[in-house]
Amino acid sequence: MNNTAKSPSIIAFLSDFGLTDPYAGIVKGVIASIAPDTRIIDITHAIPPQDITAGALMLAGSYRYFPGRTVFLSVVDPGVGSSRRGIVARLPDNRSGNIFVLPDNGLITGVIRDLAKPDQLECYYIENRNLYLNDISSTFHARDIFAPVAAHITAGIALEEIGPPCDAPIILEWPEPDYVDNVIRGKIIYIDGFGNLITNIRANSSNSLKSGAATARIAGHDIPVLNTYSDAEPGGLLCLEGSFGLMEIAANKASAEDILGVQTGANVEIWTV
Amino acid sequence: MNNTAKSPSIIAFLSDFGLTDPYAGIVKGVIASIAPDTRIIDITHAIPPQDITAGALMLAGSYRYFPGRTVFLSVVDPGVGSSRRGIVARLPDNRSGNIFVLPDNGLITGVIRDLAKPDQLECYYIENRNLYLNDISSTFHARDIFAPVAAHITAGIALEEIGPPCDAPIILEWPEPDYVDNVIRGKIIYIDGFGNLITNIRANSSNSLKSGAATARIAGHDIPVLNTYSDAEPGGLLCLEGSFGLMEIAANKASAEDILGVQTGANVEIWTV
Amino acid sequence: MNNTAKSPSIIAFLSDFGLTDPYAGIVKGVIASIAPDTRIIDITHAIPPQDITAGALMLAGSYRYFPGRTVFLSVVDPGVGSSRRGIVARLPDNRSGNIFVLPDNGLITGVIRDLAKPDQLECYYIENRNLYLNDISSTFHARDIFAPVAAHITAGIALEEIGPPCDAPIILEWPEPDYVDNVIRGKIIYIDGFGNLITNIRANSSNSLKSGAATARIAGHDIPVLNTYSDAEPGGLLCLEGSFGLMEIAANKASAEDILGVQTGANVEIWTV
Repeated sequence: MNNTAKSPSIIAFLSDFGLTDPYAGIVKGVIASIAPDTRIIDITHAIPPQDITAGALMLAGSYRYFPGRTVFLSVVDPGVGSSRRGIVARLPDNRSGNIFVLPDNGLITGVIRDLAKPDQLECYYIENRNLYLNDISSTFHARDIFAPVAAHITAGIALEEIGPPCDAPIILEWPEPDYVDNVIRGKIIYIDGFGNLITNIRANSSNSLKSGAATARIAGHDIPVLNTYSDAEPGGLLCLEGSFGLMEIAANKASAEDILGVQTGANVEIWTV
Repeated sequence: MNNTAKSPSIIAFLSDFGLTDPYAGIVKGVIASIAPDTRIIDITHAIPPQDITAGALMLAGSYRYFPGRTVFLSVVDPGVGSSRRGIVARLPDNRSGNIFVLPDNGLITGVIRDLAKPDQLECYYIENRNLYLNDISSTFHARDIFAPVAAHITAGIALEEIGPPCDAPIILEWPEPDYVDNVIRGKIIYIDGFGNLITNIRANSSNSLKSGAATARIAGHDIPVLNTYSDAEPGGLLCLEGSFGLMEIAANKASAEDILGVQTGANVEIWTV
Repeated sequence: MNNTAKSPSIIAFLSDFGLTDPYAGIVKGVIASIAPDTRIIDITHAIPPQDITAGALMLAGSYRYFPGRTVFLSVVDPGVGSSRRGIVARLPDNRSGNIFVLPDNGLITGVIRDLAKPDQLECYYIENRNLYLNDISSTFHARDIFAPVAAHITAGIALEEIGPPCDAPIILEWPEPDYVDNVIRGKIIYIDGFGNLITNIRANSSNSLKSGAATARIAGHDIPVLNTYSDAEPGGLLCLEGSFGLMEIAANKASAEDILGVQTGANVEIWTV
């Protein structure tokens, strides 16, 4: 592999650093110092603090929309400063060649689940201290380790130089729906800023998840599966395929979260005809 | 017109996608995939959800500060997935040549109001599906349609290739003040993060809107029109020309919103001498 | 000095403009209009409104991670429109050559405190109106004055052309801890989004601020100084060197702010053995 010949030049950045502190900005300063020509695109910094599962979900829902060979700097890191390791992982070229730089705490889980075989992922531990900043804090490895490593990758370093192979990155227990007869039992795994309740039920997991052919049940409400928001009355609830390819509970020109008052983790059922 | 010869290379991006979800980041990934050299500048993503009027106001207050030929990707889209159409609109070259890509739901209204004649706007419906992503959701046209179209424009496509001419983009009913004798009756149309109460009264709409020559009345308070914040006592209320060229109610080193407890839509009068 | 030969090409942008309004986006449009090739990196726009001390702290904690010759556009400006002046200040080349563009209200204080001698700072008042936008508001000098000046600097103008030398930029009274015998008495000066309570006590100010050798006392709690978050039990409080090189009170996988209920300004003591 010769990364230099065709170096990626975008770092896409996802974290739980929040919207008010300068942490994400400092990380960008570090990247610009090492790789001045690399462009940085924020995915989000509002992953709920230290919520690795939410981070893994949002990373998996986002990465396919970026150019091939994008480097995803992804940091939700409650174990910073402990013995948890860091990894870099690379998808095969026929699957975009995207590269992920992240703590080895399960944040990669959603990306691996998209692969036919997990061993399609080329993965290395981060151990080459020559790539880090000179001073390593015990609180901010995104700045001191992960950002420098991501920047060196876009500047052309080969992944093999970063550390020894990692055969088994840590995988999270993943929230999976049950399919029994004509009922799918899932959960709300994310609520977005519009109040859409996003489930863990993939829209393509059943041919029956179509308008007119199914009904969702949540918090005592029966809600029709429809094609689009405007198929419901204004203010009316519906269930539809959402922006991540997952079924979601929504309301036309209103917030399903406000109407139903449910939280992440709530049970949802979809009954097909 | 030969867009290729002098392609715009900036997309300015305004939406109601909020600050916590990855939606704006995903849109940027799509743009970078189609037009890798195009720069993206966020205007804001915190337009109140589905508030087309607020989006139109903020777009109109912002666009003139960007370089000529900037493409404004503007998405406040409560009708996504319905039969509402999309448009691209272009200002004349002697008015910056700015281009707007947005749903045809009135979001363009503030821009059109700045023109001497509405027909100075060159406008087309978005109908060329070859420009879209392959899979079109019913929930996220910013990602699937508007961002790809904006990216193709910065990559050099002629606007005529996007769709048929649009002679009459949808225009919002616009909140206008009344001018009767020496009283201007307007409304608070936006409250910013500093607690400044921004009215719909243009500072240049009357020669009398000057320091010492006028008094604002809101929520039972009489408030002097002054030149600048520091002309009031610390904590004191004043009315002045604000950053959008509109009269606003403010407080020196304090929040007028907190002091007065008013909301968007509140009535305000300005009495001139 | 020949700025043109080696012009900086990054503007790092810190302000109290908040996360919801288009003000930061408008400033970026102005910069792109004057210096199209200059890259803009946000540090944060969530400095508490008009809190110059918090802005000075965050600027001082951030700037050293950016490339040499970065221009820091820094705007926390409660005195906008008054007689307060603006300044540009430049660190010596052997200290990065970083340049700061900001109101002369003390926002530079943290940067100056890092210097061995204050006169190492090359400083000028902003007075050359040819560099400003044509229309100068009394409410938004970041847009009308500071951003254009910063953009012209990255486009190559010499600092001497901006205005006359400033020998004594305004300095804030700075919150300093007391060192008496084996007790350091300081204050909480910033609380970050994770609920970490950041003190004004530099970790390198005493050899005794090490794990096992000191105890912090705040709000009636005695809290051990440890090396890293995971040295405390999950949910347990600890005191450690944080990301800005300052001692901070934290909780392992939890929020110290939530546990202790303290606010900025709270007293903290560290007792060394």
